[in-house]
Parts: sequence; structure tokens; C-alpha cells
Amino acid sequence: MEKWSKKHLLGIKDLSRREIDIILELSASFKEISKREVKKVPALRGKTIVNIFFENSTRTRMSFELAAKRLSADVVNFQSSASSLNKGETIVDTIKTLEAYHPDIMVIRISSPAALYLLQKYTKASIVNCGDGKNEHPTQALLDMFTVKEKLGTLENLNVLIVGDVLHSRVARSNIFGFQKYGAKITVCGPTTMIPYDFENMGVDITYDFDTAIKKADVIIMLRIQNERLKSSFFPTIREYVDKFSLTEERYKLRKKNALILHPGPVNWDVEISSALKEKVHPLILEQAENGLAVRMGVLYLVGTEKRSL
Amino acid sequence: MEKWSKKHLLGIKDLSRREIDIILELSASFKEISKREVKKVPALRGKTIVNIFFENSTRTRMSFELAAKRLSADVVNFQSSASSLNKGETIVDTIKTLEAYHPDIMVIRISSPAALYLLQKYTKASIVNCGDGKNEHPTQALLDMFTVKEKLGTLENLNVLIVGDVLHSRVARSNIFGFQKYGAKITVCGPTTMIPYDFENMGVDITYDFDTAIKKADVIIMLRIQNERLKSSFFPTIREYVDKFSLTEERYKLRKKNALILHPGPVNWDVEISSALKEKVHPLILEQAENGLAVRMGVLYLVGTEKRSL
Amino acid sequence: MEKWSKKHLLGIKDLSRREIDIILELSASFKEISKREVKKVPALRGKTIVNIFFENSTRTRMSFELAAKRLSADVVNFQSSASSLNKGETIVDTIKTLEAYHPDIMVIRISSPAALYLLQKYTKASIVNCGDGKNEHPTQALLDMFTVKEKLGTLENLNVLIVGDVLHSRVARSNIFGFQKYGAKITVCGPTTMIPYDFENMGVDITYDFDTAIKKADVIIMLRIQNERLKSSFFPTIREYVDKFSLTEERYKLRKKNALILHPGPVNWDVEISSALKEKVHPLILEQAENGLAVRMGVLYLVGTEKRSL
Repeated sequence: MEKWSKKHLLGIKDLSRREIDIILELSASFKEISKREVKKVPALRGKTIVNIFFENSTRTRMSFELAAKRLSADVVNFQSSASSLNKGETIVDTIKTLEAYHPDIMVIRISSPAALYLLQKYTKASIVNCGDGKNEHPTQALLDMFTVKEKLGTLENLNVLIVGDVLHSRVARSNIFGFQKYGAKITVCGPTTMIPYDFENMGVDITYDFDTAIKKADVIIMLRIQNERLKSSFFPTIREYVDKFSLTEERYKLRKKNALILHPGPVNWDVEISSALKEKVHPLILEQAENGLAVRMGVLYLVGTEKRSL
Repeated sequence: MEKWSKKHLLGIKDLSRREIDIILELSASFKEISKREVKKVPALRGKTIVNIFFENSTRTRMSFELAAKRLSADVVNFQSSASSLNKGETIVDTIKTLEAYHPDIMVIRISSPAALYLLQKYTKASIVNCGDGKNEHPTQALLDMFTVKEKLGTLENLNVLIVGDVLHSRVARSNIFGFQKYGAKITVCGPTTMIPYDFENMGVDITYDFDTAIKKADVIIMLRIQNERLKSSFFPTIREYVDKFSLTEERYKLRKKNALILHPGPVNWDVEISSALKEKVHPLILEQAENGLAVRMGVLYLVGTEKRSL
Repeated sequence: MEKWSKKHLLGIKDLSRREIDIILELSASFKEISKREVKKVPALRGKTIVNIFFENSTRTRMSFELAAKRLSADVVNFQSSASSLNKGETIVDTIKTLEAYHPDIMVIRISSPAALYLLQKYTKASIVNCGDGKNEHPTQALLDMFTVKEKLGTLENLNVLIVGDVLHSRVARSNIFGFQKYGAKITVCGPTTMIPYDFENMGVDITYDFDTAIKKADVIIMLRIQNERLKSSFFPTIREYVDKFSLTEERYKLRKKNALILHPGPVNWDVEISSALKEKVHPLILEQAENGLAVRMGVLYLVGTEKRSL
């Protein structure tokens, strides 16, 4: 089998189709491990993984922490709020100090979009991006693609609709990069204030008409509205948002029969998706969380054992 | 030896006498392990335990975390305050998402009394209740019973006195269910505002006269006054409380010679118990903490390996 | 080889020269382990280490946590802010309760200087001091000495200059005790309000003239100015401080050719040290962090396996 050669996972943009295939195939076998009696393999025994969160995210941190433990790595968590960043230390200084511990992998969440490309200069560790501002959230896109491939049997030439606050969404960007590599036709849909004008340069269609767009979509990715946005000037009233961009029961009926509804979770019910649809759509969204753990095990395994052939 | 068949530990109420005996016997052997050079057995290797705390409790969380580690399980902690619950997610959604990681055991503390009976529908994991509102705190009662059995040699037909804020106490309820299974005569004692009227239906005696009640008791369980109660309308002045319900030196002299003084800790000295008695009563209260770790190892072992015979 | 006989590491003051040598030699081999593919040895498998932080310190806690994990110990963290200390429990009661878990090592940070000598009465565990108020921070001094020995080849008869807020500095005190055991001539330098008068009794020289003192120093330890001090009455204006006690480019030129610049980190650039010197001085400061992990592994190993001969 082929060798994996990427040191970091900074974004989906940098990955080849073949590399995505390798991750997804490997993750499928890790999904099985998490269902066993003994949910643990010695793959990364003696390796050190540092989870570095300059922004808070319990779910993503837990998913990576558990992925690391099931691979038998040693994990330590670094949260900026409790750290010396409060004392005026820069992010680069923090990374350099953590580098002094010779970690094998740094899993980093950070608010600044270009930061990880900068930070890779300061560490010999593999960096796994788990959210860098508005830029990318590659493991989220990988788990979305994993879910789609598992459910639809293919990633080829899909019609993908992404709905909501596209402007601030690293999930949207990573998914666009990912699905496009498999020939997807991508449409983004949301309030005018939340669709970046330059997205046309990314080769996606822009629409403000959810009702029409949903009819053609094979995959519908509902983005999460961040609480802090709800009060911002970008955002219309909730009633107006729901009226036009929420997945309501009426809109759900308009979808193609096998269309998948994805959401990065947790859902704001009755904002992004009507709670009347919970029984129908929640099971798949929860399976996304399960797949997220599998995909993170896959990614940590690959960057953590880069020199081994698969 | 017999098989253990309970999947969850939701409360003492649900346990048979025989089941309590099994837990206490097993815990005795785990107490020995914690005194060894190598304080670790491979019993739960490859199992995943998630500590889910919707209410904060450093002590109980640490006790369970250490119990899990000494059984070689992988543990991750989930604290609601740092979590997406802040973003308006429901508790059921949180449990469903954590379930996606296929944990073997969920250790849950939650403020809502009926919640765990509801939550068990949403997970294949074994649930261990570590405090559900005013309802139960079964491992606390088990460690109390463990301590009593170790010190008095028996649990049969004891005279048990429970003193303090009985109204809000899950510790009181779990102990009542537990000791009654061994024929105990139970008396509760506290301010009128802190004794639930319907406790007579539980087959316990109610008294407001600590001085008289203490004379007959084999076991005296002093409940902790929660700080938040001190300011509430339920609570008399501290001076009035101490006057009537604190274990003072005078009252201590009234007790039966071998009566045990228990307290779930940490003690508010000079509120529940006079600090003049610290040297006399604190050692046993600290041994309760030690026994708590042993009992939690026992419980995690039993629910985590339910299919094995003992 | 000789046996290690110290149970605790409470301060450098208590250590013999020979004991410091043993720690530093052992730490050198642990530094190598942290560079291996498999950064883990089974030395403390089955031992329990509790990190007890009554003051917050992400860096030191992480360093000890990782050191413990690389020695295969089980670690749990106790932070006072999240704990029952909030409920009015005393520190002694907390230690007694944690003792109930039979930990092998307690790593303690605490604001009160004499506390650890008191606390050792309440535990059978080995205590490792990681900062006790203004008293000592022994692992910081050990890592400083480790760094100096590695870079200069010797610890004998050095001229050591300590600059900054000496009054509040446990780092200063531990380093004075340590380097003096190897015949060092020590000079402390800082604002008059930040030099304790009684330091002359410790056999150190006091100066307020950094420019002159720097010319003779083999080792220059720049102390960190704590943020909370900046606003205190002890502290001159920052401009005044920088003017007299910051390591500026001009002062840097005055140093002896091979003089080492140390700092416990994180540096307040342009306060303690000019950011123009970052490229020159930061690499060694980061290597101090690396050495800190090695030294902590060494200390945990020694106190955790005290009965074994080396």
C-alpha cells in the first residue's frame, strides 16, 4: 500500500483526492475499533499529543482527546484561557514553549485564519488544524465526506448545498474544497450579509432561494449559527432567518428522496432546523459525531506515523 | 460465584441486598489494591468512561477518575460549564452526542432528579449516578455502608440517625434505601423547614430533638449544609442551627460508645460538627473518602464487565 | 550506584551537592528519552501522582503532567478554584482528603511559604514543591542549573547575577541556595523596593547598577515581573524599570562573551528583556523549558522510587 507523506493536516485545500481516500478508508477501520470490547490499539504508544485550544470547544477537544487515547498516545490539554497567554505572551511564544516538550502532534484551534501556516515554522510536530478562524476545519469536512460516502456509496459528482452563515464558516470552506475534488457542483445559500461575494471565485453557485436549491441537492449541509452572530449586525431577525433559511417541514418535503441532511452540531433547533424534523434528521447528525472520532483517529494515525507505509 | 446482572447504577432503591453485598465484598479487595506498590489492574483496559458533570464536584469527579485509571480504563471528563450546553443544547442532545463515541460507562452528575431514568434510553453505556438532584447519590451510600460494615462488622438491624438538611439530601435518601434493606431503624433529624413531611412514608422516624435521638444511634450521618442553602429561606440562623443540630462536644458525650460519626465531606467545621471534635471524628470521615474510591472501583468494575461471572 | 534517600523535594536548601548531582545526571538521560520515537518508560507504572495547584500555573502543571505520563504514572489534577476550597475547606483538610486516595506523589503549588513543611505531616506521599509562595521553586532552580551545566560544562565557582523582582521571587531564592552549593558568587540587582534587606545574610551581594554587574556575570538570571506587581506600590513605572533593569541591546553588549541569559518564562518582552534580543536569547530560554520537563521526570522518578538503588 502507498505511503502517506503529508506531515500536517492544515486544510482540505492542500490534500489530493488520493490523500482524502486514504484517510477515509483508514477511518472506516477505526470506526470498527470503537465498537469493539477493547477500544484501543497501540499505534501511537509513547507519542505525545498536545491539544492546544486558543478558542474553547468542548466537543472537538473531547473527540480528539478520545481519538488520541484509543491510539494509546499520551495527551495533554492546553487551554489558552487558563494559560500564560493571559500574561501577555504571544501565540508564537506559546507554541515554541510547547515545542520544547517534543510533542509528536499539536492539535490546534485558533481564531486567526493564517496562523497555522505561520506556526508550522516553530515546531517539528505535525500540526492538525481543528479550526483556524474563518479558514478551514478539515476534520469536520472529512467527517462529512466520510458520512456521505458511507451513506450514498460515492463522493462523485454530487450536488452539494450549504446553507446558513457561509461568510464566517470554516466548515463551509473545507467542505467546498473537499467535495469539489470529487467533481461536486456546490451551491451556497444564506442571507446576503452572510454570503461572501468572492465565493464565486471558488466555483460555487450562490443563491438566496433555499426552496428551489433544495430540490436538486444530494447533500444539504446546514451550518450552525454561532450565538455571538445572533446579536450581530450581520444577522437578520431570527424570525426572518427561519422564514428563509431554516430547514422546515415544508422545505424538507421538497428535497430529493435520498438527500442527506448534515449539521456540524450542536443544532440550534428551530433556528437552523425545525425541531419537528428532529426524529428524522438527528440520527445522521449524531452519526457524524461518531464518524468524527473515527476520522480523527485516522488523521492522528497518519500524521503520527508518517514514515510507516500503510 | 454469582453473576452481576445490573447494567446501570441509578440508585440504591433498585438494588437488592445481595447486590449490595456483592459490591461491598468486591470493593474490599479494591481497597487493598490502592495500598499496593502498583495500584493498577487491567480490568477495564480498552474501555471508555466519560465523566459527565452537569453540576460541579471536584471530589467526586476525582474519585471516579482515579477509580477508572486504576482499572486501566480510558477516561475523559465533560463539564457542562465549558460545553456547548452554554449554546442552548439540551441535556439529551449532549448525552446522544457523547453516546456517538461508544463509551462503555457514563458517570453522570445532574441537578434534575428524574433525569437518569430518562437518559438511559439514549445510550448503550452503563450509567453510574453520582448525584441526581435531590434523588440519590448511590456511591455515597455504598461507601457509608462499606465503612459501617468494616467498622461495626455488620449492617444488620442498626439504629441510624441522619442529621441536617434532609430535604435537599440525596445522600440521606440513598442511605435510607440502603440501610433499610438490612433492617435498620432510621431516624431523621433537622430543622422543620428541612425535613420533608412525606418522609414518614419512607418508614423513617422524624425528630427535632438531636439530644435524645443521638443516645440510641449506632450510626450518625451528619449531612453537609450546602453553602447556597445558608442564605436561603429554608435555613435558620447559623447560631440557631448549631444550637440545635450541630454535633457539639456535649452531644458527642451523649452517643453510644461505639457509635460511628459519618459525614460526606468536606465538613463545615463548627456548623455541622464542632471543630473541637475534629481529632476524634475526622479520621473516619477521611477513611470514608478512601472507601469511596474503593467502592467506585467496585461499581465501575461490575457495570463495566457485566457479562463476566465474578 | 548510590541510593537516593530523600522522600520529598521541598526546597533546594535541603539538598546536598551530591543530591543535586544525582538529579542532574538522571535528568540528562530523561532528556534523551523525550527525543525518542517512544517517549515513555514504565518506571512509575501503577503509581498515582496528584497535581495540586492552589495557585494557577498552566506551564508548570503541564510540564509535571507530561513528566508523569512519560514515566507511565497515573495523574490526576486538582485545581483549587474548581474545588471545595471554595466551600470554606482548609488546605490541610484538602490534603488529608487527597491522601485518602493513597497517592505516591503530591506535586503542590501553594501561595503560603511555610505550608509544605506543615503539609508533609498529613500525607505518606512524597511532596514535590512546584512553588510555595516567596519561599522556593526547586524544580525551576534545578532546570536552571541543568541548563548551565550543559552549556558551560560546570557549575563550579560561577558568577551568577539575578535581576528583577528579587523580593517576591522563589526562583531567586532557590537558585541562590543551589548555585551557592557549588561555590558561586551571587549578586542580586533590582529596584530598591524589590530587594529584601536581609538578603545580605544569605551571602549575596546587592547592587542597583545592572551595567556594572553584568560585566562580570557568567550566568544572568532575569526574573519575570508578575503582572499583579506592575500595578503595585513596589513597582516603579515601567519606563523607569526598563531604563535601569531591562536587558537591553546596550547592556547585552556589556556581558562576558559566553554569559548565559536565563529566564523562567514566559518573558514580558521589552520589560525584562528587549524584544530586539529575542533571536539571541529566546532559544536558550526555550531549552530551559525542555530541560524543565527532563528535570521533573528525574525528580518524580527519584522520589517515586526512593527505595530502589539507582
